[in-house]
Amino acid sequence: MTIRLGDIVAALGGELQGDPDAQVTSLAPAYRAKAGEMTFLTPQKTAADLAQIQASVVVLPPALAQLGAPKGVSCVITAQPYLYHARLSQWWAARVRPPLASGVHPTAYVAPGVKLPASVHVGPFAVIEHAAQVGAHGVLGAHCVVGEGVVLGEHARLAAHVTLGQGCVVGARAVMHAGVVLGADGFGFAPDGPRWEKIAQLGVVRVGDDVELGANTCVDRGALDDTVLGHGVKLDNLVQIGHNVQVGDHTAMAGCVGVAGSAVIGARCTLGGGAIVLGHLRVADDVHVSAASVVTRSIEQAGRYSGVFPLDAHDSWEKNAATLRQLHRLRERLRRLETPHKD
Amino acid sequence: MTIRLGDIVAALGGELQGDPDAQVTSLAPAYRAKAGEMTFLTPQKTAADLAQIQASVVVLPPALAQLGAPKGVSCVITAQPYLYHARLSQWWAARVRPPLASGVHPTAYVAPGVKLPASVHVGPFAVIEHAAQVGAHGVLGAHCVVGEGVVLGEHARLAAHVTLGQGCVVGARAVMHAGVVLGADGFGFAPDGPRWEKIAQLGVVRVGDDVELGANTCVDRGALDDTVLGHGVKLDNLVQIGHNVQVGDHTAMAGCVGVAGSAVIGARCTLGGGAIVLGHLRVADDVHVSAASVVTRSIEQAGRYSGVFPLDAHDSWEKNAATLRQLHRLRERLRRLETPHKD
Amino acid sequence: MTIRLGDIVAALGGELQGDPDAQVTSLAPAYRAKAGEMTFLTPQKTAADLAQIQASVVVLPPALAQLGAPKGVSCVITAQPYLYHARLSQWWAARVRPPLASGVHPTAYVAPGVKLPASVHVGPFAVIEHAAQVGAHGVLGAHCVVGEGVVLGEHARLAAHVTLGQGCVVGARAVMHAGVVLGADGFGFAPDGPRWEKIAQLGVVRVGDDVELGANTCVDRGALDDTVLGHGVKLDNLVQIGHNVQVGDHTAMAGCVGVAGSAVIGARCTLGGGAIVLGHLRVADDVHVSAASVVTRSIEQAGRYSGVFPLDAHDSWEKNAATLRQLHRLRERLRRLETPHKD
Repeated sequence: MTIRLGDIVAALGGELQGDPDAQVTSLAPAYRAKAGEMTFLTPQKTAADLAQIQASVVVLPPALAQLGAPKGVSCVITAQPYLYHARLSQWWAARVRPPLASGVHPTAYVAPGVKLPASVHVGPFAVIEHAAQVGAHGVLGAHCVVGEGVVLGEHARLAAHVTLGQGCVVGARAVMHAGVVLGADGFGFAPDGPRWEKIAQLGVVRVGDDVELGANTCVDRGALDDTVLGHGVKLDNLVQIGHNVQVGDHTAMAGCVGVAGSAVIGARCTLGGGAIVLGHLRVADDVHVSAASVVTRSIEQAGRYSGVFPLDAHDSWEKNAATLRQLHRLRERLRRLETPHKD
Repeated sequence: MTIRLGDIVAALGGELQGDPDAQVTSLAPAYRAKAGEMTFLTPQKTAADLAQIQASVVVLPPALAQLGAPKGVSCVITAQPYLYHARLSQWWAARVRPPLASGVHPTAYVAPGVKLPASVHVGPFAVIEHAAQVGAHGVLGAHCVVGEGVVLGEHARLAAHVTLGQGCVVGARAVMHAGVVLGADGFGFAPDGPRWEKIAQLGVVRVGDDVELGANTCVDRGALDDTVLGHGVKLDNLVQIGHNVQVGDHTAMAGCVGVAGSAVIGARCTLGGGAIVLGHLRVADDVHVSAASVVTRSIEQAGRYSGVFPLDAHDSWEKNAATLRQLHRLRERLRRLETPHKD
Repeated sequence: MTIRLGDIVAALGGELQGDPDAQVTSLAPAYRAKAGEMTFLTPQKTAADLAQIQASVVVLPPALAQLGAPKGVSCVITAQPYLYHARLSQWWAARVRPPLASGVHPTAYVAPGVKLPASVHVGPFAVIEHAAQVGAHGVLGAHCVVGEGVVLGEHARLAAHVTLGQGCVVGARAVMHAGVVLGADGFGFAPDGPRWEKIAQLGVVRVGDDVELGANTCVDRGALDDTVLGHGVKLDNLVQIGHNVQVGDHTAMAGCVGVAGSAVIGARCTLGGGAIVLGHLRVADDVHVSAASVVTRSIEQAGRYSGVFPLDAHDSWEKNAATLRQLHRLRERLRRLETPHKD
């Protein structure tokens, strides 16, 4: 594919310094972009980075643009080059991957009585159960299962093998990758002597608009309350959200995060990959938890929090870890040295 | 739905103090239950909690009942209110969600020669391979794959997209949520210079009665021995059980737990979310491992075990983590101070 | 099944000391192998282990063989008994589990224009999209989805419910277990005030030869670059590989590992279960990371690395963890004691 630079700027904005007739053949990261390609530099980059650009087009902030691009490199100047790149990537993808034709694949199973908008695409072997509602322009991939009474907003895009459990409600423009399970039972059991008695999970999952869920990510239905994901929430792959959890708007969680039941997580938070949040606690808005850290208590102040054992050569780690098991006693010994008259 | 309180007590027991003709419209947690709703208070709750009840019915223990419920609140008195609630929730769910009609969906594929009980429900596009046996009253969701020779006990409930690998054996009343994979190959390879030679996994998975497996949870088949889950085992979502592992009766594991190959875990244990158990070790009965803790050695005594780096503000964590890498040397320095004559 | 020992040795090599007409009924681990069974002892084993063998056949190294096997036990002598066992297990499995007949199941959906080799096996409800290529002798399990333009090498074995995203390229002899998702979107978003703008993921996943991916494991497509798994890479279940990651040849990762975006991991590495590797860093060849350890910085030297909080009885842990939050200050206090004149 080849696209005229002027057409890109006409669609996405930015100030063009250079040749509107330049032909862009692909997008590429700055370190390897070459002639014909378009790349970007974030404001953190330096004159040295700019000097090494071999792309035909670079999206960059005004301060970098003032330094002067290498000869023959067209510039698109914008305050937020990374955001510009994001929009460009979508615009590009829409051209590289033409939209799927609307229609219901003849092998799909749609329960009697379900009415689908003419604009939806339903892939092979998809299943849409009784009383489910799919919004206009929805795309359901192969083997998706949309449970009874599910409400799925407009412009949803479900990859293959997505399961939406009975009664779950999802807003507009949802993106769900393959293997997502929304609305499985929460993990709730009452002890009965040595055995466990199941607590039926009577709630659903409610998902706001513009939510993206990564591959094989699970969001459980609530026990009595519902599990709620706010608008703009982004969950990476293999994330686990327990029952009754509430996640505030625009909070993002990287891969392998686990959030235990009934936790309430604020808006605009980020949880690094592999982080664990225990149940029944609250995390304030604008909290950023480092990867692999464990949130064992409520966090009431915005800020960055961490708790990871530092990696070390195995032998050093082993010695330090052994000593760590005596740390409290070391502190007592230190205290005794500090106040020797108390001996 | 509206249910007469007297009917609930007739079905589930408990001592009723109040109006048997009270109408219950739904179950709700105590903090928000209002008129028409039924809730519960566990023995840990106080008179103040009881005074705030606005539900029409509360399930509570005798000690709380003696304090006197607010006016107009009916009481159901039972020694274990949480267990009562669990049974009530199931009883309620059976009314809210009528059972699926028996029968095999016309789109399902059942291998020639397989005989299914008339009482089973088989959903769209389910696959039942050669020589598989499905017990009476089984429910197989859409897209389930029941492999060759699998034996699945009575009253199994498989959600969508569950995969049961060849030869696996599952007891009665199994509940498996969407995306469960039972009987994938264990992770076994012999080094052959720099490369790995696959070890064929010749065992199966054997699962007891009353086992529940969460969404996208994986239990690998054994290498030579079988992988075994005892009766009443409950695994949450995204749990990984390696080959040859044995899990004792009624042990429960929260989301994102990983148990490496050949570990033997006792009965009535609990593993918190994200805990990791290394391979080839033993965990005694009645061991409780905190969330995100790592079991690196066998545990021979019942009890509670933990090992998590405490969460802290990032800057504090960074200082402490850096110091931790010198902890062993700090201990040496402390020792030298304590015995200065040895300098 | 019963196999003549002489036939095994003829097929797999090794020096036979014993009866070639011995009949082997199954393979079993040494601790429980009995008459009729075949087992193995690795070079780490001792004379005592050998003396306890009750199997009919044992594969063992020359040094152990010289000690003399128990009476009636045939020996197969080879330098690498574990590797021999691996090959034997495969040879055995090929007999126990006869290969699936070639052919495309009548319920599968193959897009118009796709040509499949006559040697492939395509299971029920599999989906093969436009322009996909499947190599000779490929096995696609039930409900697999092979996306548009995918290239899948010869002798691939895909279990049920595997999803290969559009444009991904996989080498020969791939083994993918149920629920694998290859080529979901990487987790890329540009901040736009409080909200996130999606970055379209324009790369693919490229997988070398002889790669095995465990159940429900996810490998994301690249953003602009591709995500690359080298030859012989082995990933266990529930592993997450972020976008743009590169994994060197023969690197193996145990269950629940997460590798964040743009990490570059060398060849012949091993990552223990639950390990986390942060994004945008490099791990040298021949690095071994212990289970549940977190790689927060690049590792430039081969070797073994660890970072795990040691498990302890909960009360001890709690005291030590609390003290750990003051560790840096403890160090300051220690320093003051060491240099009292500076007070």
